[in-house]
Amino acid sequence: MEHHADYAEFDSSLNRKDALESLIMSYTALAESQSNWVANLANCSSLLYHCYNNAGVNWAGFYVVDVENPDFLILGPFMGKVACQSIKIGNGVCGTAASTLKTQLVPNVEDFPGHIACDGMTKSEIVVPIVQNNKLIGVIDLDCTELNGFTEVDQKYLEELAVKIAETCKF
Amino acid sequence: MEHHADYAEFDSSLNRKDALESLIMSYTALAESQSNWVANLANCSSLLYHCYNNAGVNWAGFYVVDVENPDFLILGPFMGKVACQSIKIGNGVCGTAASTLKTQLVPNVEDFPGHIACDGMTKSEIVVPIVQNNKLIGVIDLDCTELNGFTEVDQKYLEELAVKIAETCKF
Repeated sequence: MEHHADYAEFDSSLNRKDALESLIMSYTALAESQSNWVANLANCSSLLYHCYNNAGVNWAGFYVVDVENPDFLILGPFMGKVACQSIKIGNGVCGTAASTLKTQLVPNVEDFPGHIACDGMTKSEIVVPIVQNNKLIGVIDLDCTELNGFTEVDQKYLEELAVKIAETCKF
Repeated sequence: MEHHADYAEFDSSLNRKDALESLIMSYTALAESQSNWVANLANCSSLLYHCYNNAGVNWAGFYVVDVENPDFLILGPFMGKVACQSIKIGNGVCGTAASTLKTQLVPNVEDFPGHIACDGMTKSEIVVPIVQNNKLIGVIDLDCTELNGFTEVDQKYLEELAVKIAETCKF
């Protein structure tokens, strides 16, 4: 890549699967020389946001376990509008992914018990836990302004990305 | 605010001065209950990016001193395209703001000796150091796709924001 910014250019003709494969390759290349979690997740948020650019995704980023208050997730790097800073583990979509260590694929956030609305525009969401040495580190969170914004294809690749993040970042 | 996302809504009729005053009030309100630097700078990047939304600003965020390698700045939270992860203090616009502890207002990045191009689209830049207890913590960095993207008005308010960040964040 001539400039780092070029990593954020996704060919708009790619289908979701190919775009996410390209994203994982870009993340891996960027993380090769860097293990700082803030830097890596900041660039990863940019990759995610630009990858999903034409798909109604209005927020892409991370919540991480708050080391000072480990019953809570705290806001990490992201792209999108201002977000809730702190989420109790077990609450809402992010908190449920964190407490169950299972991806939450939510076609309609209104149907999710205890959904926490940081943005009233969000209609669907996917949250994928990041686990390192059998310990919850945080979650990948994507919001979409359309219902049914995400499918099992997103789940498969975002879970792969979560493994890659756990392998490459010092938290 | 009904939703956190509403903080990112800036009235497009505001002039730069009024928009930046509104941004500083929003940052202060958000940081009242939170001192985690990653969460606060992530939301602050979102405020900056949306505040400058219609002004050609293509990147808004932070580099912080790399505690593992204190001769370098490392990428912090930001909004925009993927960015350089590491910058030697003293190099480029960010590194010069860090080494001199002085705001760098750069009307044309091509004229800045040793400018580091993360994105070939960037034409002008402003970088403001963040100092806490007489120690460099990091920098606020804004890039613009137009020449002369920033003026002394931006400098004044971004320097005020840097003081507010130093007052409200634990690094």
